[in-house]
Amino acid sequence: MDVLIVGGGIIGSSIAFELAKRGASVVVIERGELAQEASSAAAGMLGAHSEFSTDHPLLPLALASQAAFPAVIAELRELTNIEVGWNEAGMLKLATTMEEYEKLTEHYEFWRRIQPQHVRWLTSKEVADIERNVRNEYGAMYTIDQQVNAKQLSVAFAHGAMAKGARVLPYTEVYDFIFERERVVGVKTTSGTLYAERIVIACGAWTPMLAEKLRLSLHMYPVKGECVSVTTETPLLQTTVFAKNGCYIVPKANNRLIIGASAIAHSFAKTVQTCSVQHLLARAMQIVPAIAHSTFEKAWAGIRPQTKDGMPYIGAHPQYENVFVVTGHYRNGILLSAITGTIVSDMLERKDVPFDMTPFSLTRKEEGHALHH
Amino acid sequence: MDVLIVGGGIIGSSIAFELAKRGASVVVIERGELAQEASSAAAGMLGAHSEFSTDHPLLPLALASQAAFPAVIAELRELTNIEVGWNEAGMLKLATTMEEYEKLTEHYEFWRRIQPQHVRWLTSKEVADIERNVRNEYGAMYTIDQQVNAKQLSVAFAHGAMAKGARVLPYTEVYDFIFERERVVGVKTTSGTLYAERIVIACGAWTPMLAEKLRLSLHMYPVKGECVSVTTETPLLQTTVFAKNGCYIVPKANNRLIIGASAIAHSFAKTVQTCSVQHLLARAMQIVPAIAHSTFEKAWAGIRPQTKDGMPYIGAHPQYENVFVVTGHYRNGILLSAITGTIVSDMLERKDVPFDMTPFSLTRKEEGHALHH
Amino acid sequence: MDVLIVGGGIIGSSIAFELAKRGASVVVIERGELAQEASSAAAGMLGAHSEFSTDHPLLPLALASQAAFPAVIAELRELTNIEVGWNEAGMLKLATTMEEYEKLTEHYEFWRRIQPQHVRWLTSKEVADIERNVRNEYGAMYTIDQQVNAKQLSVAFAHGAMAKGARVLPYTEVYDFIFERERVVGVKTTSGTLYAERIVIACGAWTPMLAEKLRLSLHMYPVKGECVSVTTETPLLQTTVFAKNGCYIVPKANNRLIIGASAIAHSFAKTVQTCSVQHLLARAMQIVPAIAHSTFEKAWAGIRPQTKDGMPYIGAHPQYENVFVVTGHYRNGILLSAITGTIVSDMLERKDVPFDMTPFSLTRKEEGHALHH
Amino acid sequence: MDVLIVGGGIIGSSIAFELAKRGASVVVIERGELAQEASSAAAGMLGAHSEFSTDHPLLPLALASQAAFPAVIAELRELTNIEVGWNEAGMLKLATTMEEYEKLTEHYEFWRRIQPQHVRWLTSKEVADIERNVRNEYGAMYTIDQQVNAKQLSVAFAHGAMAKGARVLPYTEVYDFIFERERVVGVKTTSGTLYAERIVIACGAWTPMLAEKLRLSLHMYPVKGECVSVTTETPLLQTTVFAKNGCYIVPKANNRLIIGASAIAHSFAKTVQTCSVQHLLARAMQIVPAIAHSTFEKAWAGIRPQTKDGMPYIGAHPQYENVFVVTGHYRNGILLSAITGTIVSDMLERKDVPFDMTPFSLTRKEEGHALHH
Repeated sequence: MDVLIVGGGIIGSSIAFELAKRGASVVVIERGELAQEASSAAAGMLGAHSEFSTDHPLLPLALASQAAFPAVIAELRELTNIEVGWNEAGMLKLATTMEEYEKLTEHYEFWRRIQPQHVRWLTSKEVADIERNVRNEYGAMYTIDQQVNAKQLSVAFAHGAMAKGARVLPYTEVYDFIFERERVVGVKTTSGTLYAERIVIACGAWTPMLAEKLRLSLHMYPVKGECVSVTTETPLLQTTVFAKNGCYIVPKANNRLIIGASAIAHSFAKTVQTCSVQHLLARAMQIVPAIAHSTFEKAWAGIRPQTKDGMPYIGAHPQYENVFVVTGHYRNGILLSAITGTIVSDMLERKDVPFDMTPFSLTRKEEGHALHH
Repeated sequence: MDVLIVGGGIIGSSIAFELAKRGASVVVIERGELAQEASSAAAGMLGAHSEFSTDHPLLPLALASQAAFPAVIAELRELTNIEVGWNEAGMLKLATTMEEYEKLTEHYEFWRRIQPQHVRWLTSKEVADIERNVRNEYGAMYTIDQQVNAKQLSVAFAHGAMAKGARVLPYTEVYDFIFERERVVGVKTTSGTLYAERIVIACGAWTPMLAEKLRLSLHMYPVKGECVSVTTETPLLQTTVFAKNGCYIVPKANNRLIIGASAIAHSFAKTVQTCSVQHLLARAMQIVPAIAHSTFEKAWAGIRPQTKDGMPYIGAHPQYENVFVVTGHYRNGILLSAITGTIVSDMLERKDVPFDMTPFSLTRKEEGHALHH
Repeated sequence: MDVLIVGGGIIGSSIAFELAKRGASVVVIERGELAQEASSAAAGMLGAHSEFSTDHPLLPLALASQAAFPAVIAELRELTNIEVGWNEAGMLKLATTMEEYEKLTEHYEFWRRIQPQHVRWLTSKEVADIERNVRNEYGAMYTIDQQVNAKQLSVAFAHGAMAKGARVLPYTEVYDFIFERERVVGVKTTSGTLYAERIVIACGAWTPMLAEKLRLSLHMYPVKGECVSVTTETPLLQTTVFAKNGCYIVPKANNRLIIGASAIAHSFAKTVQTCSVQHLLARAMQIVPAIAHSTFEKAWAGIRPQTKDGMPYIGAHPQYENVFVVTGHYRNGILLSAITGTIVSDMLERKDVPFDMTPFSLTRKEEGHALHH
Repeated sequence: MDVLIVGGGIIGSSIAFELAKRGASVVVIERGELAQEASSAAAGMLGAHSEFSTDHPLLPLALASQAAFPAVIAELRELTNIEVGWNEAGMLKLATTMEEYEKLTEHYEFWRRIQPQHVRWLTSKEVADIERNVRNEYGAMYTIDQQVNAKQLSVAFAHGAMAKGARVLPYTEVYDFIFERERVVGVKTTSGTLYAERIVIACGAWTPMLAEKLRLSLHMYPVKGECVSVTTETPLLQTTVFAKNGCYIVPKANNRLIIGASAIAHSFAKTVQTCSVQHLLARAMQIVPAIAHSTFEKAWAGIRPQTKDGMPYIGAHPQYENVFVVTGHYRNGILLSAITGTIVSDMLERKDVPFDMTPFSLTRKEEGHALHH
């Protein structure tokens, strides 16, 4: 086979989809089922504008990915008939304290300079006109950011890849590599040995353990994110409401709201902490008081891959140049999935990538700090 | 058949068990499955001492029921092999404010006078010695009150009745009565017509609608109770911890804690309100701070039958003397189940009942007020 | 209010949607949650052609309803953003024995005469070309019949009605009617008393119990239908495959197949019988052998309303002319939902209905037999 | 710490329990939650007599383990309050064909010679007297074999260990070992590095991947076992009914029957195959016809560790003598858990083990064949 992708999350699936479209023979190996972990736990915001407020190296990728989605989703729907819950009602980025208000105005100024058509400042009254259930006293920034059903999108990428000829091996675990004359030529899996020209490792937070077997030390750690969902008789929100301090409320199909998310570093446990549920609900009820009388549905957790400097790892192994590592997208994996598929496919085909990828190289010297929200 | 019981909750099942033991031919009709609604939603406290603090007419029944449980449970285990989670570690009744403290001391004084061997006052330090995870500054009352798995006990009553010859008809709904010469001789059900010598209506909060067809107006309303459960790696509590204001935390098998309960009057909806989840968790974390880092499990609701004066209805229909109504146990249905089975069986057999039942008659003149906690 | 609809299944919701569009003030009362029972259990086939093979009185309604769906679904998507899984790949009606083959050719001849453009006879080879996983030796009839996600369509009707101003009261149970001077003026419910100009009773299999309180005897009984679902890695079927003897396999989103359905008369129990699961799976594996290696997902049951002569009841009460009964659609409730909403709205507005409704009247003299499949 | 156990299934937990009782400082590392995989999927038979019919090297261990259980379970109940569903009604080993009948008589003769008090031959009539719902024409062997709730027993071992001071780290994955001067001194995990005097690898079917990192090649493969469960209104069986060909029906609490089990070699996928469900149900309905009208509950799968010669691996690593491997119990993990805990603890303490352990050594020369049933 041409390419073996280790990891059936949204990143691995998006790469498989793009490569399969380009005619490569592709196999995706997944240790459990498709789109588990971070890919299925995410709230699905495509928050290029709401997540970035500075000239971050990821910004060009985020904007390009966001722009690519309408075509990608149309293509996936055509191929797979899977509905990914595309929603372009936009987002309200709220300040809930004076301090947040000051930061939010800077956030707005940043975008007003570079993409004035994609953001808008709203007075409290204008917020109330758009979302009458939102309690707001400081004003807010409106952004065009869309959202999707993250799990469905991830599954659609995988099924789209399969429709284009890729194979998926679920319940198959890679536990070592096969070397021949200083080259990696395959992997040892619980379903046997597999050989491939090129190998992509896209195992999210579990990537470092595999990378270590290739003597590659990644500066990464897991960050658990917990969410809750509630339902209402009639819709409470049209837009996603995203408080500057990180709490967001995302309206989904069938009058469901997803409220997220905690950030508990260094935990691989998919359990949900009681204090997180309490805190998320209290925060959501403060922003949208009518949520108090909604129906509680459930709580869940996903494990997101974070890096020490907050940049994903996207690049070839310094020694084994046919091995690529793609991980560390943290909160931006859904948003960046579309462009990541294209970029990694270009890399594998030794094509030029139209972005500066040095900040994401596997051997970069890290000085920066993790993205904070 | 001798007796037809409408309602397969804990009250109907307990009556069926006692009657079947006495040799009666008994049929239980249940509109859904056994032990749904309040019977399965309850936390299962047998709180004779923690729930009553005055000379309430229910008190003699509560104490007699509590005393009867060890033998009843042994009998049910023998007959059904169902484990009901009997736990006699006792309860801590806590004050969390000065005002609660004053009421709790009165509560304690009440019991010290009549059953000093069953209660004990504990200083803050003594509370800490018993339950080191409980935050307490006012002292507490210890009571001998036990607890069980409410759903399993309810199922055990029904299966015990079946072991003694009773029949249970699930998914069968009574929608009217059959009259002959001014007597009720049977019921119309979705599975056809059934005739019986005597009929017991024990439909919990749904009893008034059926009673109305017999021109009996019951002053009742549903009170939704919501609970959440969490789990921990190691046990946090041995005893049930019950704050004076109504919040309780009940330790169950496998390191599970049930936290209850809200009280939302006039609702038949088995949905769980978001604000209840938030409030219960916040309250539990205040009393047992370590709950913050427990694992959230789930939330649920049950619909409890409350009466205007807070007394259950236990008695014969004033006009149709072969029809008995047994409902309105509100928060005390699990506790009172054992004695209710015996009392109602005595009534059906026209035996003397060793309690003053006039406060629970169907035709009493109500002046009192509902039990408040 | 103008109209009170008892029952939040697909029939009640479709009527509510149409009436609300016409400007009526509508309330839907539902004893549990929306779209339970038959409405959510159905496989969702719109089988006008596959279900009817004679000049049945329902046929004109079935064809009109089928023709109305594309516009209805577009309207509901616009109003509610709910995806109803519309699929127009068509159906294969298979014979699996010589006897079924003979009946199927008659079935085909019936349609060839009246709608030749909507059916096609397929040789075994043509079947194999269309669905290579189907085992077939007799040939098959292709029909244009579409299918939907039944539960989502039902919820969409209800939410569409709400978007047009209707109100829905879940967890509210009607247990009697209010009469004034020989007229029905309202209902008694567990949430209190409600008055309305006109009342529609659309409670599926539970309708007769309510009708009896209006001295109306409906010749109806419940028929439990059980289904199972399986999933596959890649799609096994494009079209719905429907064996002449009643077993069908319906391809749904995300490579899920629904296999149905048993028919167990006179049961209100939503339990699934072990022998039904075994039989449905054995039958499906016979028709599509590759199902043997699919992943088993789950089994469920729904309670469908059947009438003695197989015709639904759609009409006004003979004595209380402001009360309408709409039920008894048995296996055709999803298919007939669209036209039923329109017809009943016309009836309520005293408009002419463009169909012969006498076979469905509440007072018809029944001689016929139930539809058999 | 003294001992680090990799794997929180029943084998690892049983070893932890025994070691903790002996005073060792123990940590159990589990990649997910406790008692997943084979430990929770098993039907829980302690079938020393029903599983063995020859002088197998495991037989002394099986009999010793079976004999140890009453005391172990009493101890666990005392420590943990967890109910493990101990049931000693015994088993009926049935022949369903003439060929099975001949093998069963040999099976019976084997036991009659060595433990006549633990088995009994039953005529068809005697079978009918014991279990009137069992269809049998050949006679059967009665054995004293008990059964338990496998998952609860497994959890009880772990919690018993914790009560004795052991620590459990869930959601922690071992991905490599730490070597110092040709010795294994610890493990690398997703929660960081851990050092220990001795290490026990008890990862069930996932053991070979970890063993390979220690240059130890185990001849093992996964065998998926699938089960279904059904429930009944009244008990159908008292004893476990185990057909000679491998199909068994195990009566559990609350009138639940577990029907097992398929054996699909070389699969790590926890999905349930449709044909397995169909086959298990058909087989169970043949043996106990009344199961046809039981209520279907669910289906599940577990991955069992099988070895090439059918013997478990229990012993020290040939090179790293402080590392022990304990796996490969296949269908007998629950039965062997009690004795395995004791044996491995003895090995770690360099005590004599009162069994011939050479057939289970990690370096044995395999000639035999796997156990077949």
